[in-house]
Amino acid sequence: MSFNTFGHMFRVTTFGESHGVAIGCVVDGCPPLIALTEADIQRDLDRRRPGQSRFTTQRQEADQVKILSGVMAHPKTGEQVTTGAPIALLIENTDQRSKDYSEIKDKYRPGHADFTYEAKYGIRDYRGGGRSSARETATRVAAGAIARKVVPGINVRAALVQMGPHAIDRGKWDWDEVGNNPFFCPDKDKAKFFEDYLDGIRKQGSSIGAVIEVVADGVPAGFGAPIYGKLDSDIAAALMSINAVKGVEIGDGFATAALTGEENADEMRASNHGPLFLSNHAGGILGGISTGQPVVARFAVKPTSSILAPRKTVDRDGHDTDILTKGRHDPCVGIRAVPVAEAMVACVLADHLIRHRGQIG
Amino acid sequence: MSFNTFGHMFRVTTFGESHGVAIGCVVDGCPPLIALTEADIQRDLDRRRPGQSRFTTQRQEADQVKILSGVMAHPKTGEQVTTGAPIALLIENTDQRSKDYSEIKDKYRPGHADFTYEAKYGIRDYRGGGRSSARETATRVAAGAIARKVVPGINVRAALVQMGPHAIDRGKWDWDEVGNNPFFCPDKDKAKFFEDYLDGIRKQGSSIGAVIEVVADGVPAGFGAPIYGKLDSDIAAALMSINAVKGVEIGDGFATAALTGEENADEMRASNHGPLFLSNHAGGILGGISTGQPVVARFAVKPTSSILAPRKTVDRDGHDTDILTKGRHDPCVGIRAVPVAEAMVACVLADHLIRHRGQIG
Amino acid sequence: MSFNTFGHMFRVTTFGESHGVAIGCVVDGCPPLIALTEADIQRDLDRRRPGQSRFTTQRQEADQVKILSGVMAHPKTGEQVTTGAPIALLIENTDQRSKDYSEIKDKYRPGHADFTYEAKYGIRDYRGGGRSSARETATRVAAGAIARKVVPGINVRAALVQMGPHAIDRGKWDWDEVGNNPFFCPDKDKAKFFEDYLDGIRKQGSSIGAVIEVVADGVPAGFGAPIYGKLDSDIAAALMSINAVKGVEIGDGFATAALTGEENADEMRASNHGPLFLSNHAGGILGGISTGQPVVARFAVKPTSSILAPRKTVDRDGHDTDILTKGRHDPCVGIRAVPVAEAMVACVLADHLIRHRGQIG
Amino acid sequence: MSFNTFGHMFRVTTFGESHGVAIGCVVDGCPPLIALTEADIQRDLDRRRPGQSRFTTQRQEADQVKILSGVMAHPKTGEQVTTGAPIALLIENTDQRSKDYSEIKDKYRPGHADFTYEAKYGIRDYRGGGRSSARETATRVAAGAIARKVVPGINVRAALVQMGPHAIDRGKWDWDEVGNNPFFCPDKDKAKFFEDYLDGIRKQGSSIGAVIEVVADGVPAGFGAPIYGKLDSDIAAALMSINAVKGVEIGDGFATAALTGEENADEMRASNHGPLFLSNHAGGILGGISTGQPVVARFAVKPTSSILAPRKTVDRDGHDTDILTKGRHDPCVGIRAVPVAEAMVACVLADHLIRHRGQIG
Repeated sequence: MSFNTFGHMFRVTTFGESHGVAIGCVVDGCPPLIALTEADIQRDLDRRRPGQSRFTTQRQEADQVKILSGVMAHPKTGEQVTTGAPIALLIENTDQRSKDYSEIKDKYRPGHADFTYEAKYGIRDYRGGGRSSARETATRVAAGAIARKVVPGINVRAALVQMGPHAIDRGKWDWDEVGNNPFFCPDKDKAKFFEDYLDGIRKQGSSIGAVIEVVADGVPAGFGAPIYGKLDSDIAAALMSINAVKGVEIGDGFATAALTGEENADEMRASNHGPLFLSNHAGGILGGISTGQPVVARFAVKPTSSILAPRKTVDRDGHDTDILTKGRHDPCVGIRAVPVAEAMVACVLADHLIRHRGQIG
Repeated sequence: MSFNTFGHMFRVTTFGESHGVAIGCVVDGCPPLIALTEADIQRDLDRRRPGQSRFTTQRQEADQVKILSGVMAHPKTGEQVTTGAPIALLIENTDQRSKDYSEIKDKYRPGHADFTYEAKYGIRDYRGGGRSSARETATRVAAGAIARKVVPGINVRAALVQMGPHAIDRGKWDWDEVGNNPFFCPDKDKAKFFEDYLDGIRKQGSSIGAVIEVVADGVPAGFGAPIYGKLDSDIAAALMSINAVKGVEIGDGFATAALTGEENADEMRASNHGPLFLSNHAGGILGGISTGQPVVARFAVKPTSSILAPRKTVDRDGHDTDILTKGRHDPCVGIRAVPVAEAMVACVLADHLIRHRGQIG
Repeated sequence: MSFNTFGHMFRVTTFGESHGVAIGCVVDGCPPLIALTEADIQRDLDRRRPGQSRFTTQRQEADQVKILSGVMAHPKTGEQVTTGAPIALLIENTDQRSKDYSEIKDKYRPGHADFTYEAKYGIRDYRGGGRSSARETATRVAAGAIARKVVPGINVRAALVQMGPHAIDRGKWDWDEVGNNPFFCPDKDKAKFFEDYLDGIRKQGSSIGAVIEVVADGVPAGFGAPIYGKLDSDIAAALMSINAVKGVEIGDGFATAALTGEENADEMRASNHGPLFLSNHAGGILGGISTGQPVVARFAVKPTSSILAPRKTVDRDGHDTDILTKGRHDPCVGIRAVPVAEAMVACVLADHLIRHRGQIG
Repeated sequence: MSFNTFGHMFRVTTFGESHGVAIGCVVDGCPPLIALTEADIQRDLDRRRPGQSRFTTQRQEADQVKILSGVMAHPKTGEQVTTGAPIALLIENTDQRSKDYSEIKDKYRPGHADFTYEAKYGIRDYRGGGRSSARETATRVAAGAIARKVVPGINVRAALVQMGPHAIDRGKWDWDEVGNNPFFCPDKDKAKFFEDYLDGIRKQGSSIGAVIEVVADGVPAGFGAPIYGKLDSDIAAALMSINAVKGVEIGDGFATAALTGEENADEMRASNHGPLFLSNHAGGILGGISTGQPVVARFAVKPTSSILAPRKTVDRDGHDTDILTKGRHDPCVGIRAVPVAEAMVACVLADHLIRHRGQIG
């Protein structure tokens, strides 16, 4: 048994396995009268789609989304809009390559969820990782595309800011560059460097970790709630729910441990549009509630453990053995986590917009 | 409006303000027939209690807990046990020092929740910080003491591993030292160093951040669930909900970004008690589900912004002004976050134990 | 383990046993800036309070409520208002008469929850019924008093419309009479009749059932949601959760089974204030959503099984025995269910007002 | 926005409109390793399917269900079993007859949800009733078929016990007859009578109400929880959520209002299998928890308001008008509510079985 629903007011329930018939989701709680077409969703899906460069898995999936419910042509304008009913989205699996799973069927891949799924359920869908596959994140991106329409004034963008030990030069940050390289990297020069770097990793059959930064501009003050309804708690849970994520931080994050109160406090000055903050160490959140500044979060993605080097493991019968994972996989799963993170944060913000509108925590 | 309930099966609802009549909580979903007395709870509360050294706020609170419901003498043994009914705990406030709040009543302290609470609710309880005060965490510690009784085979311990830029020497880690110094520091020598270091901070009227590590031993494999019911998501949300926390990581956390797949994979070998892991980079969680290894989490606590140095701010009427915060406060709030973090993780694990028992995600 | 929280947005968590230290509740999700004093709550509590006539239990409880949190004097007006923080209410038990429980400690009273609590928890609080006692409903009434302040334009009233086989004459319905007799009966003549009737029941040591009707005036169109968020589903669950309730109906309820479509349809005519319904068979709800007409619900309360006539039962050791219940109890528990039902419906409507404001189902 | 998810542990999220592409549901929380095929689900769907007699809507739908996720062939036995992952079910709409909706597009049908959906959402899917159509209940029946597999020892059956003013003769109750007539009626003679009776109603273009009874045999003692987690509250909410339901009762229901405590108490006698109840006025539930006796519920279904007789109404522009509803509809919607009610109660029991197993309220 499991929890496959995310969100309180804007609720996303996902389903589907890597090598099943289809994957999809149901978005419940979407406000009515929002213009929405399949193209709106397809745009975001295409950014996450695998097989677009040699740096992501070579699986070829069209990832064509179909809206099954929750929209209709507006009786007056004819434009397709949401009705307030649940929106079901379907993406058929097309490239579930028929292959030999004997290697992983009875062995636990170190660093994978193989062993834990089996410990929990007594069974696991070994075909492509089943539910634990990154394929599930396509449905998150689809839901996130709807979330973006719910928060029209808010711009959620993410970028890869570190690969392996190599961090970008923040002085060279250019959002326009993010779409110009296969790494979603905002630093043009570092993107160039990553090309060779990741090629090396890939050719060795190895993999590498990464750090991603998400920034939401245009979030008004007052989103979130104290204690257990904190905006940062929700963002932390959302990002930590993405495959392979091992750490999350808000604003200056772990660096604040080394700061003094004087250094860390974001001072304020009056302006015509309310208080103006002179810095943003807090990452746009204080006491669990948004300040009106950009909301900034960062998260670490571990290297995928599907590698060519043989690793020690055990099989289902409890015997020592070795395993190496052939087949298509991402040398740096952090790359495709970029659009997924945007989607998750957009969903959190859609949820909080609705709460805020109802003055709900 | 707000969300003051934490947990799915083991549910904790807290209430109360820093300078109100009382604080407390209701623990719902606690299994029946568990031995529980006020002394069991008091023990944990006493560890968190302020005013015990010069390194925490000088507020004097007895923090005497009272069980209002949910227990009775067992009809056969006479021992006080839980009945399955909600357990209400009450802690009266005694040292709400009558003081002059005029300084903060109409000004927003930079780095505090003053501005955001007011943006959200149109009103804020300025008396000691109201609900945003760290005083609320006493009720979490009380609930955590009950959670510990629900998971008897699991040992949840935390320790301060960094203060300001000064990290402990992990080779000198000794759990027995944690109770021997006012910092919950497992490195005896560093604890000695922190005494002078924090004295300096305190005398300057400044403050400093910290990093805390929580370790849960004895968690069986199979706690947690895929996708949105992940054990690490729940821990991340729980720790991020503690006052002043800005980052959370599991296992090797952010360091995994720099690792290769070979380095990061925790290899396995067979043993009489199921698979044995040869390392624990994962921090005891794979795919959102526990592996049976120790669950390891770390989090960063920012420096409190209640400092003596004047900071630029604005008042409620929108005018520029300066503010400095006199009065009792913690030079390093991270210290008291140690028992709070233990309590939060214990609550998460109690929740997941119950789910696990019902084979629920 | 149990579910002691009611509501989605306006959430009430109750605690406490009949013969424990205190009973109380935490109301979370109450909007800020609503004027609220203990007197507002006391007024409703006093209507439900036992021992006010010979027709309810002779237990003497002051039922004095204390607000522990969630309110403060408004900084400008000085009026006590809600802050958006959770509101904890406490009512101390004072008349837990020390008595001999040996009769019921080891025997299951037929028609009571004695056997089922023990089947579920392996223990039960036999002292006055513990959590299953109607005493718990005092905390619901207290929460309901807050709910009423959240929906100022809505008037929720209830009345006893049947006792035993004796229904009121609906033509004589006068809301003003409800406060003039100990039965909350809107038919003056029937109330007179009930006096002798219930005296007879009481003197025999017997008990009798009743039917209560709740009417909410001023509910705007649009509260509720389709499918599983239906206003009538929420009302049904709320009323069924009151002790001893065995049936709930909305509008014409069970009588609609015998109607044709022509008879049952509430026709409409245009008016300056939107559609005007020419009848209200639907009880103000269509498709789970309020129509703008009065919301009307009715529910049946079974006779209490605490009676003087001996009944066949078994004891905890599995032996046949007989039991008769002495001591204080209500000859018609339906009477005190009247203010409780008002409170529950007020809570449901407060919940839906908040959802409606946020355009949430 | 809306709530389209039902259940706590065994959670069903439904989607789809009457005249959309498809309807379906996601069942989350289903335990792993339960044998499940499409045929298991199809069997129940076929019982509810429209167009099988002249007494239900003439819409022709194959209602062919497709499992999209959550199952796989067991690695050892090859049998298709659940994996613990969410089970998505899809039913394509095939007979969305292209028709002229001009009559109802701009007019509110009295007794329908037309007006309330529009009041809530500002838009409504007028094509076949959209989400408010009884077509949605097909997805409930599909989910219920899975629920039945989760509670193998429990037998949930329902029957029509009243149509219009005509109740069955309970002495002639024969469960085997339920499948032998188009009304799910357990009284052979009354079923014969209903044939002519409903033909008359149908030919007049009228409609009629009904009462359905649901009985769950084999429910062990201890399902449910006190206060707000009551089994009867959950059943009441579940049944009230079915289209056109206006009343729900448990056990003797409204009849208990006229009973004395002596008459209503279900006495007990010892047996080898625990306490034996000598009657079942309580309908198998005391204090919100199952007693081990059959769980009995009844509910009233109003007549559908889609009738040929013209009714007064208003249009969207606020003008008086008349409306009559041509096209396919059920003369007695209560009939098809029979398998739907079984499904809903099976879902509630699956939910409570899981809670019970985890000792969760």
